[in-house]
Order: sequence, then C-alpha cells, then structure tokens
Amino acid sequence: MNGFVIKGNILYSASMGKINVFPRHFLVCENGLCRGIFAELPDKYKDLPLHDYKDQMIIPGLTDLHIHAPQFGFRGTGMDMELLDWLDHQAFPEEAKYADEDYAKKAYSIFAEALKASATTRAVIFGTRHKAATECLMDLMEDTGLVTYVGKVNMDQNAPEGLREQSAEDSAAQTVEWLEDISGKYRYTRPILTPRFIPSCSRELLEKLKGVRKTYDLPVQSHLSENPEEIELVGKLFPEASFYGDCYDRYDLFGNRPGGKFTGRTVMAHCVYSSDAEAERIRRNDVIVAHCPASNLDLASGIAPIRKYLDMGLRVGLGSDVAGGQTESIFRAMTYAVQASKMYWRLVDQSAKPLTFEEVFYMATVGGGWFFGNVGKFEEGYEFDALILNDERFPHPQELSLHQRLERFAYLGGDMSGIEAKYVAGRKVK
Amino acid sequence: MNGFVIKGNILYSASMGKINVFPRHFLVCENGLCRGIFAELPDKYKDLPLHDYKDQMIIPGLTDLHIHAPQFGFRGTGMDMELLDWLDHQAFPEEAKYADEDYAKKAYSIFAEALKASATTRAVIFGTRHKAATECLMDLMEDTGLVTYVGKVNMDQNAPEGLREQSAEDSAAQTVEWLEDISGKYRYTRPILTPRFIPSCSRELLEKLKGVRKTYDLPVQSHLSENPEEIELVGKLFPEASFYGDCYDRYDLFGNRPGGKFTGRTVMAHCVYSSDAEAERIRRNDVIVAHCPASNLDLASGIAPIRKYLDMGLRVGLGSDVAGGQTESIFRAMTYAVQASKMYWRLVDQSAKPLTFEEVFYMATVGGGWFFGNVGKFEEGYEFDALILNDERFPHPQELSLHQRLERFAYLGGDMSGIEAKYVAGRKVK
Repeated sequence: MNGFVIKGNILYSASMGKINVFPRHFLVCENGLCRGIFAELPDKYKDLPLHDYKDQMIIPGLTDLHIHAPQFGFRGTGMDMELLDWLDHQAFPEEAKYADEDYAKKAYSIFAEALKASATTRAVIFGTRHKAATECLMDLMEDTGLVTYVGKVNMDQNAPEGLREQSAEDSAAQTVEWLEDISGKYRYTRPILTPRFIPSCSRELLEKLKGVRKTYDLPVQSHLSENPEEIELVGKLFPEASFYGDCYDRYDLFGNRPGGKFTGRTVMAHCVYSSDAEAERIRRNDVIVAHCPASNLDLASGIAPIRKYLDMGLRVGLGSDVAGGQTESIFRAMTYAVQASKMYWRLVDQSAKPLTFEEVFYMATVGGGWFFGNVGKFEEGYEFDALILNDERFPHPQELSLHQRLERFAYLGGDMSGIEAKYVAGRKVK
Repeated sequence: MNGFVIKGNILYSASMGKINVFPRHFLVCENGLCRGIFAELPDKYKDLPLHDYKDQMIIPGLTDLHIHAPQFGFRGTGMDMELLDWLDHQAFPEEAKYADEDYAKKAYSIFAEALKASATTRAVIFGTRHKAATECLMDLMEDTGLVTYVGKVNMDQNAPEGLREQSAEDSAAQTVEWLEDISGKYRYTRPILTPRFIPSCSRELLEKLKGVRKTYDLPVQSHLSENPEEIELVGKLFPEASFYGDCYDRYDLFGNRPGGKFTGRTVMAHCVYSSDAEAERIRRNDVIVAHCPASNLDLASGIAPIRKYLDMGLRVGLGSDVAGGQTESIFRAMTYAVQASKMYWRLVDQSAKPLTFEEVFYMATVGGGWFFGNVGKFEEGYEFDALILNDERFPHPQELSLHQRLERFAYLGGDMSGIEAKYVAGRKVK
C-alpha cells in the first residue's frame, strides 16, 4: 500500500461559506488520494508512515487559475498604467524576448522555483506564443511537482511585429506541432488551448483553434471583459457577436454548449464587466471565472461583481494574474477578493453583500480545484493536495481559534516563509 | 566627531511625485543628522567608519502615522465587520484586557518586537485608556530605538463598562498623572494627547483635554470622518458643530488655528468622507491626514479622496491603522494607497487621477516624516533615518532599474525579511 498519514490542525471548506475545523486530527493519503480525516487513526492505516505537524495548520492546496509565466520577472513594476497601454509597454516587449530559448530558460527557471515555494499547488498558466519556450516552461513545471496546465499563446493580430504570429495558419500549425511534441511527455503538466484574448485573434485563427480543440479535446484559457476600452475594441472587431464571450463561443472555445462533448474545461480570467447575458452564457456553458482582484486593482480595471455571479450559480476560482497582479500569492488574492468586494458594496451596489473570508477560502481551494477534477477538499477520493502552515513567526498574547489563525495567516500572507511543507497529488514537493 | 558613512544605491523623494536615484553613492551621518549624498566621499569624512551595502538599496525610513498597539494581537482576524460593530466585538473587548499590567507587558512586547523588525522607523501610536499599560508600552518602544509618539487614550462615554473611564475628571486626571510620570523619562518616546474619537468623548472631557493641551503643548492624534454611520452618530452627538472635525477644533484639539501657538502637531486618521469645508479646515489648521487605505478596505469604510486633498494642499502621510488594517507594513500601505486611488478613479470620480508610486513613496517618507520635524529626506540637516533593502530573494531575468527594484520591493512588501538594516536618528537599530 502506497500511502502516508499526517497529523495536525486540519481546516478545509466543504461548502461555500463554511470552514470545517479538526484540531489535532489525522489525514490519510493512499495512492495519491485522500482517505479522510480521523480523530483516531483506523487500524488499517496504523502501518503507514506518520508525520506529526504538531500545532501547525493543514489546509488543502491553493489553485491559481490565471498566471502569466513570462510576466513574472517584471511583477510589481510599472504599475501606473491601464490594460492596453500596459500590454504595449510592459507585457509585449518582455514576452518578445522569449523567442530566445536561453532567455526563456533563465526566466522560467526563476518562475518555476518561485511557484514551487509558493502556496500554489495547481496552476493554469499562460506561456508566450513561442513553441520552444513553452516546452521549456513545461519541462520546468514538471520538475516542480505541481500539477499545471500550460498554454502556448495564440496571437496573430494587434500585437507588435516579432511577437505577433505570421498568420492564422502558422499559429495553428505551431500549436499542433507543440501538442505533438509534448504528447505523452509529462505526468503532471498538461497542455491548454490559449487564444490570448479576442483583440489578438483573427476570425481565421479562432476557426482553426476550433478545429484544434475538437481534435485534441483541449481545455481552454483566455481573458474576458476585463477593461472598458478592451471591451469597446472587441465590440468593434466583432460586431456580429452578442457580447465579448460570444466571440469565443461562436468558435467552440467557451466551455461546453448544452450537450457539448468536451471534457477539457474552460477558464476565463477577470469578467469584471460581464453583462447578465454574458454571465448567463458562462453559467450555461460551465465556464469557470478566474477572479483576479489584485490585477483588477493594479491595472485600474474595476471590481468584478462576484456576489452576483455566485448568486447566479457561476463557478468562481481565484487567479493571481501575475503580472497584471503583482504577487503570485493566492493568500493575497483571497484577501484582495474580500477587500475589493467591500469596495464594490460600498461604492457600487449596497445590495451586493461583501465576500467573506470563508467564501474566498472556498474559491481558492474547491472553487479553482474543480478545473483539475476532484481537488480542493479533504474528502474520500479527492486528490491529496495539502499545505502545512507554520504561523509561529506571528506570536499573539491571547488565545486564537484555528479559524482565526487561518484568517490571520491569509491576511499576513505576503510572506511565503510560513509554507512549511506542500503536498501535491500525494507527493511531498516542498 | 560622532558619525559614519554608508554606501549603496540611494533613493529618496525630494518632492511629491519624484524619486531621486543615486547608484553606489555615499550617505553621511553626523551627530544623528544627514550630511548629504556624495558620488565621491569628501576628505573631511574619510576617517568616519564606512559600511558598504554593495548592491542593496538605501531609502529613508518609513513613518506610520496611525497604529493601535493593543490591537496588534488580533490583526488579520474578524475582518468581516464595519467600524462600529468591529469596535464592539473586536477592539473594545481586547483593549479592556490592558487593565492587567501583565497582559499588557506580554502583548506590547510582541508589538514592539514586530515594529522594530518592520520597515517603520517612526510611528504615532494609540495605547489604551490605561495609564500603567501605556507607560509599559512607552518603556518597550524606547527599547526598540524607534522614535514614536504614544498616547494614553481618553474615552468617557459610548464604550463598555470597564473600558470606559469613570468620568471626564478621572480621564483628565489620569492623563496628567501619566504625563507627570513619564516627564523626562525617555529620549525617543514622546507623549501625545489621544481623545479616541468624538463618539467616545463627552464635551466635559474635550474641555478638560483642551486645558491639558494648553498646559503641556502636546501634539494630538485622533480619528476623523472614517465611516458613514460614525459620522451620522457624531452629527447627533454634536449638533452644534459644522462638521466632524469642527468638534475637535472647538476644543483646540485640531492643529493650530491661525495665529495658534502650539508646537505639537495634530494627526487625524482616515478622512474618508471629509467635506470641502472640513478639508479646508484641515489645511488651515495644518493638521496632517493619516491615510490608512488597508483599514478603509478591511472595514469597508470607503476610499479617501487623497487626490483632492493633495490638490487642495493638505498634508498627507500613511498609516497602517493596525488592526483596522491587517498589516503593520507601510510598504503595503503604499501599494494599497495606489490601488485604492485607482478604484476611486474608476468607480467614483474619473477626474481624480490615481496616485502614483512616486507619490505614495513621498507620503510614506517626507509626508509622514513632517510630524516628527525634519524627517524623510536624505538632505543636509534632516534626521538620519534609513532602511537597507535586500531584494536578492527576488531574482529577475532582465535588467531592472533601481526605481523598478524599489517599486517591486514595495509591491511584494508583505515580507519584512528584506529589511537588512535600519537606522533611526543616526543609530543602527536593526
């Protein structure tokens, strides 16, 4: 039997808005899967190796639904621009460098190390449009032990010469080559179809990507309704679409239409300005929203109406959106999500109750975990992803409940030195 | 000659919105004061001990204009409430414990250690209403080497039995006793008059504090126009006042009226909802605004219109407002200030240009430093407060300018392990 047991103060969220707390309990992993939480260890698990994390906290791993690997090197710099300017002045010039494989290796090594050290156990990652660089990124991610989706970006218009792909044919052909190159190569690193965003993709390209998705049954990641100017531009480029998301949906790149047969899921980052019709299409097609509050603040995009989406029954997880957002910390994404929702309530709509800590914890674990299957809970049959949190660095004069300690850890969460250990799919990776 | 020289990459802000950069320059300290920045070290300083910080950054110390020491222990917990509820459920019950001197010593030791380790070199601090506990806090702060103002709180109404002082007489008498106890006791720790906020203070108490201020020429700290319900309550309690700030001004607790003779300055935390008349009074009386963006987000208070205040010529510095704000990091206060201003621009008033990184850096150094005299610049005659920032933990594949490295350090600034060394008033305290 391939397994182990860890002991400590276990917390996880089984349903939106509620955190279950199990002080000094046992957590069993067998063959990469969770076998449950026990106050007393059942006899059948008595022979498994046991590690006691004492008074430390054990929580499910956190999923980052949206992060740009090539932007990691300039995170936290040049933060005084809006999206379209920022793409032209920050993101595109840096991404163009990834044509150079040596540069890509150097930069992606830094990214992979940082993500391994972070609270993130699973991530959905943008690369650049470069095939070789993207394969390098996948090699490095595989070495981290994290489970990730990584995408070679498609972009054949509205980007600088050099970064823009030569044609829709070329973009699609490179994508197929990439998919063939990496087929069967990795255990924990998976490809994802990655049209950058609608302004970067011609109709021809979208049509070709529709074919690629059909052939390979790929998941999809992209951006949606992030910034007012961007949305206006999309409206001009695609007057035939009912709304921004409809552009993707017309090419089968937007989840599953009713009766759809794709097993690969779709994540759309931002959704700051989705209309009711767009939100309803997101729900109908079972697309997941990657809420990226740090990015939405940093690029002055606005505040996504997450309460409305939850009330409508949409799936929502969290994304760091490095480097639109300045930090890879999903703990900070959690607290930014609460803070942004409070401003939305105060400044936009007092009927939209602010998000609670319990709700954003659910989004960071179970919410985003859905993209990877049964991920984010400590329940029988879920993949075993866990973080061990050491908060000894933060002494306190009074008693704190485990719930308070977790909340405090998240709110002080810029500092990753408290991630004592990290398990992904049943393996200790840190 | 009592002095020393440090060498490194020096950055500081001489005027709002501009950061001066001096790569690998010398910075000279003599008798606690800055003697300037030099590309080549002048002969007269050649005999001073020199420490070379190599590629690290040297910036002025950061000032925290508003922090509650007794709330430090519960920072980052119970964040899902608004101000008045939060006071009743979080702040007041914890503060009541400080009647116990042992508890105060235990809790304040944790606070003092944390502040010493932080980026803060100067702070304006709320204690509780307890005289003994406040003296204990001042003893501990003196040991840190930081320069601080510390206040025994006055509150004789609208607070729970036990925390509320028995009467205006008692509150004032305790304050005078406290001032006499600590007179001449400290070199770096100074008293500040601290009426909690208008709802906690009877007219009788304010009248007595007016007398105390006159006798001792004290600086003043309090709260102003933080939350809509609070402001409504103040309106009911003081119908005779023109606006919230006028309540303080009627009792000489609001800076200096024209021709006023106080040398002790006044800081007012928050000013989220100051009317034009209130803002104009703040300006006229030379009161400084302690902008506390993390707290204003966490307690869902709103966003202070800092651009308007700057345009009107008000003085503005930054405050952590622990534990309304979750973190003592003034780097995080800086980036929250930028982020909040972007949301104000996007959601409230598109004529209010977002704050830039350069502007909030000025606020955190020169802006808040004003409260302590000539503090916050590396110019001749300024007190020598400096931070040495080590960003080696954040490798990057490309060249970054010093300006970019500083901005990135701030945006990733939840982590204080990068504060390599810290000087306050010419002494190395860390």
